[in-house]
Amino acid sequence: MAATSDSARPARRSERSRRATLDAVFDLTVRRGYAAVTVEAIAAAAGVGKPTIYRWWPSKGALALEAISDRVGGVLDFPDTGDIAADLTSQITALVTLLNSGFGTVYRGVIAEAQGDPDLAAALRDTVVEPRSRVCQDRLAKAVAEGQLRGDVPVRVMVELLYAPVYYRFLLGTDPLSPRQVPGQVEAVLAGLRPPA
Amino acid sequence: MAATSDSARPARRSERSRRATLDAVFDLTVRRGYAAVTVEAIAAAAGVGKPTIYRWWPSKGALALEAISDRVGGVLDFPDTGDIAADLTSQITALVTLLNSGFGTVYRGVIAEAQGDPDLAAALRDTVVEPRSRVCQDRLAKAVAEGQLRGDVPVRVMVELLYAPVYYRFLLGTDPLSPRQVPGQVEAVLAGLRPPA
Repeated sequence: MAATSDSARPARRSERSRRATLDAVFDLTVRRGYAAVTVEAIAAAAGVGKPTIYRWWPSKGALALEAISDRVGGVLDFPDTGDIAADLTSQITALVTLLNSGFGTVYRGVIAEAQGDPDLAAALRDTVVEPRSRVCQDRLAKAVAEGQLRGDVPVRVMVELLYAPVYYRFLLGTDPLSPRQVPGQVEAVLAGLRPPA
Repeated sequence: MAATSDSARPARRSERSRRATLDAVFDLTVRRGYAAVTVEAIAAAAGVGKPTIYRWWPSKGALALEAISDRVGGVLDFPDTGDIAADLTSQITALVTLLNSGFGTVYRGVIAEAQGDPDLAAALRDTVVEPRSRVCQDRLAKAVAEGQLRGDVPVRVMVELLYAPVYYRFLLGTDPLSPRQVPGQVEAVLAGLRPPA
């Protein structure tokens, strides 16, 4: 994210302040819930000024989005062991574990905020949802090419069949998936995505 | 929803005031977006007192949830023509059409609010998500019994495969489904749910 400044000298975004701010929004949200956290409280906890925060991020939602993108790191990288069922199970298990942790509290807040903030919704799509969907689509396309999955269902549709139920249960008030339910869930979806015998 | 009162006489919930309040929350949310609508504005638009609103509903979220439950009426009833593909297509098309209308703006606000309000999340699950899921599960179970769908995928999982992608695209910032995409989407899911030939 480019730093912007209305002063004559370019704003120099200190990495230490950036890190402290991202940690503050994450930790405060996990402790208090997204709605209860103010930019004032984030600024105070991070030891930075509120104007500094608004110079770097347009909104609390944008800040929380960067905090989660930043935390995910390589945890959700897509494995490729050659066995698509095993790889999907391990990747979705990692996602479910993350959603059931403090990370899920922050992510939930970002998704909620995005419902009323089109800029944040676009940033969520462009920085989180679409890039991860594309990585998964690539892995699925390889499995199609290897004959492990049927070729007549678009890989984008396959991604939604695999991941949408995770979000559905995360967001719609029903019981979230637990990691131990993931293998059965993946198997139920793959039952329909394997090539006819 | 039972009326509660802290006065000695039971509060009599006037149907006209209830209707005016539900219409106000719906119309104001469609016009201004959920976050911008206050209970004060709802009370003013409905011509009722704010204390009256809080006597009937615990929160703006609960009020908006009742407004959407109330509006859905029979629009999302599950048809049974004997052809499961046709019935799913027509029911999901009705849902998608509703989500793309003003109704979607209000529903989106309720889902967002539920992320930080466990009582509202439970009410959303118990009054909207689960009852509709059960109706769909019953229709799917009939199709399984008739040999139109495979018997080795639980009907609850089938419901998620069919509906979760609709919500995924509605909530995660990607393009929402359009009614004309529904037949293809249903067909892609059913490809995996039909009994092996």
